[in-house]
Amino acid sequence: MIAAGATSVGIIASKDPRFDQESGSPPMEPFQGPHQGGIASDQQAYALFLACDLAKSGKEHLRELLDVWSAVAAEITAGNPPPQPAGLTPGFSADTDVGAGLDPARLTVTFGLGPGVFGDGMGLDSQRPKHLRPLPEFLGDTLNPAWSDGDVLVQICADDAQVVSHAFRALRARMPGLARMRWTQYGFLSRPAAGGTPRNLLGHKDGTVNPRPGTAEFNRSVWVDSVDEPAWFHGGSYLVFRKIRMKTADWDQLPLAEQDRIIGRQRADGAPLGGVDEFDAVDLQARASDGEPVIPKNAHIRLVHGFAMLRRSYNYDYGTLIANAGGTPDPVPVPPHVHASDTPAHAHGGHSQLDTGLLFAAYMNDPPAQFIAAQRALANDPLNGLIQHTGSAIFAMPSGCAKGEPIAKVLTD
Amino acid sequence: MIAAGATSVGIIASKDPRFDQESGSPPMEPFQGPHQGGIASDQQAYALFLACDLAKSGKEHLRELLDVWSAVAAEITAGNPPPQPAGLTPGFSADTDVGAGLDPARLTVTFGLGPGVFGDGMGLDSQRPKHLRPLPEFLGDTLNPAWSDGDVLVQICADDAQVVSHAFRALRARMPGLARMRWTQYGFLSRPAAGGTPRNLLGHKDGTVNPRPGTAEFNRSVWVDSVDEPAWFHGGSYLVFRKIRMKTADWDQLPLAEQDRIIGRQRADGAPLGGVDEFDAVDLQARASDGEPVIPKNAHIRLVHGFAMLRRSYNYDYGTLIANAGGTPDPVPVPPHVHASDTPAHAHGGHSQLDTGLLFAAYMNDPPAQFIAAQRALANDPLNGLIQHTGSAIFAMPSGCAKGEPIAKVLTD
Ligand code: HEM
Ligand code: HEM
Repeated sequence: MIAAGATSVGIIASKDPRFDQESGSPPMEPFQGPHQGGIASDQQAYALFLACDLAKSGKEHLRELLDVWSAVAAEITAGNPPPQPAGLTPGFSADTDVGAGLDPARLTVTFGLGPGVFGDGMGLDSQRPKHLRPLPEFLGDTLNPAWSDGDVLVQICADDAQVVSHAFRALRARMPGLARMRWTQYGFLSRPAAGGTPRNLLGHKDGTVNPRPGTAEFNRSVWVDSVDEPAWFHGGSYLVFRKIRMKTADWDQLPLAEQDRIIGRQRADGAPLGGVDEFDAVDLQARASDGEPVIPKNAHIRLVHGFAMLRRSYNYDYGTLIANAGGTPDPVPVPPHVHASDTPAHAHGGHSQLDTGLLFAAYMNDPPAQFIAAQRALANDPLNGLIQHTGSAIFAMPSGCAKGEPIAKVLTD
Repeated sequence: MIAAGATSVGIIASKDPRFDQESGSPPMEPFQGPHQGGIASDQQAYALFLACDLAKSGKEHLRELLDVWSAVAAEITAGNPPPQPAGLTPGFSADTDVGAGLDPARLTVTFGLGPGVFGDGMGLDSQRPKHLRPLPEFLGDTLNPAWSDGDVLVQICADDAQVVSHAFRALRARMPGLARMRWTQYGFLSRPAAGGTPRNLLGHKDGTVNPRPGTAEFNRSVWVDSVDEPAWFHGGSYLVFRKIRMKTADWDQLPLAEQDRIIGRQRADGAPLGGVDEFDAVDLQARASDGEPVIPKNAHIRLVHGFAMLRRSYNYDYGTLIANAGGTPDPVPVPPHVHASDTPAHAHGGHSQLDTGLLFAAYMNDPPAQFIAAQRALANDPLNGLIQHTGSAIFAMPSGCAKGEPIAKVLTD
């Protein structure tokens, strides 16, 4: 009886990264270490990306923000309440209790610095990471400034959405006077019960070809260690963030075989066209009996083949575009960034009003050779007709910190 | 080794309703039965509320929508792909694969009918549930029509956000020509690792005093069985939905003791003021040594005491108000429904631009005596200064259906 129960539970639990079977202790990711958490960490099920602008110029203000935020992050990732703010009036609580009783659920809090941090009046010009410049414009961009750019990024990930929301609340409680909220984006990503690669909202497995932490390829493509980069940034990484809306109603109206040709992989099992298993080698030379390439000329995976970077993206589904807006409803049925060439709103019963897609988040150490080159290579991607890049940002993610120290200490000292 | 592993996993898994330990089979909620799922079901961790309007008048069109939707819901709640739509072109897929490989995660799909369904041109006038009328206006309402009302509601709940998103996609694929999307709202609710009452985003335990399924109180207050109600509606329930924004930045600036006095319960452990345990009886007569009531005159739990209804609400956190909007960013820093009396946006570093709160969802069989009376009793609730009701709707949730039958068959026959 016990044995049977134990077996079935064991099988289920072993599939789920949320449970640390070996220790039986609540699942945690360390905040301190040579690298920040949330990059090489196994991807958690929920994420919030939050970007803000510094309220005042000067590296001392950045330092103040990173000091208090690092102290908060160190405690909450360990499952503790945030530390008491200096001068908290007696009777006031340092925590909101929103996460009370919840496991840390592998919470990670990862900080990043945008180009503005190295701009005028900051006193950090000489410390700018080599490639930390606003991204160039790409063909087809329909970016909305409301969810682009930012001075400081926080990536909050955990296997529990309420833990993410609690962490967000704990961090923003320390923003007044130091930083102003710019944008936030919530995502999710579910791992199949049997383990394996999660799926994006086009239905394809996403992340099959991705550098694996601890490998030489990962170290070569993700962590910064070039002599051309400032010393404080070694052990860090660049994050390129793109909010990419998917026209799911249009996508869903394509035959499965055409979807597979657009990606270059089979939606059903993730196998490359011409292969049988998800992890089969991709044969870009293979030709069908009619002489045509088995993996089409413009297939997504052909166009970006060889651009190694750690894609650590999340799915998002905000439902109807207007549903989550705080203001008055938009009287225009088709929002400005939807092209006139789109199927009109009514044709899908309002589906083109839906905001669903991918919070593309990629870590790399050489953006021009990685994201920028890859995104240019995608200029003729047939996927472009089915997606819209509506948000964009780049950040330098500092290396990790030692116990009791803030993120980016060397930079702001 | 096996025994040790088994024990610790057993302990962790036993806390988590997502895992059915006894059978080891994927956790499922039945779609068929005397009542619809998603009402008496243990509350899942994620929810989507979606409201739409019928594209055409006439009960036959409602029937068509409920026919296809019931067929989809019956399959996906059982962990199967949605059924092939009639006339699907060969090569097209009936599913999106967005949920492929994922457990059904206790998915429930619960349908409801709004007042419009019994209006002009529908041919259902004589079948209108007795209390299915738009809710009256309440003091302090700041409702936005963009996320209020609707002809048909779908409540989708599961322990996995991607399963919810997949179900949403499967259902909306069947809407064109039948229904138009009106609003959607996503929520979450995390159960403490050690079990027990979940917390809302004010940090208090929420759901302590709530009718428990299977009890006489539950049957008396939730399921419709009055002779005054049409026969088709027996075994159903009314759902009152309110989107309630919380001014969390203001709330977080109150001393803990004041927060507790506003609710009438201790945030830390949920005990009623004057009690020591969450489930201690609420003593509304108790007086402190100074003669003042221990549970203040206007405490939330005093004002609504005795209004039995099943509160099955979800937390929501959409981050910055504008972040999820599809249109151009709002140039006005304080959105129209935020009162001038609110702390100005800049004082909290933009916190009053956040959209966070409660998707209040309550099931009951007599709205005038339950929600409407309770909400009127809350007219002097000090909580009112800290929240804003921004969305509102009422629906009649039909009873369950038999295998192979659609929801509300008797009504639409
Ligand atoms: C919504 C937009 C996108 C979707 C739906 C998408 C989807 C996919 C899928 C399904 C795969 C194959 C599975 C895998 O190896 O992970 C893939 C691979 C890949 N994607 Fe994307 N992608 C998107 C945007 C991008 C962008 C913007 C970039 C970079 C500019 C990118 C870079 C890559 C790379 C480097 C690979 C691996 C290619 C290989 O070497 O096989 N993707 N993508
Ligand atoms: C954001 C808005 C609200 C918050 C934060 C809130 C919070 C709470 C909390 C913390 C409790 C005590 C724990 C419990 O028994 O569940 C409670 C109880 C209750 N609330 Fe609310 N509530 C809100 C709105 C409402 C509304 C709109 C109604 C109905 C009109 C309502 C009806 C009730 C009832 C009936 C109880 C149980 C009272 C008793 O008999 O002890 N609440 N609420």
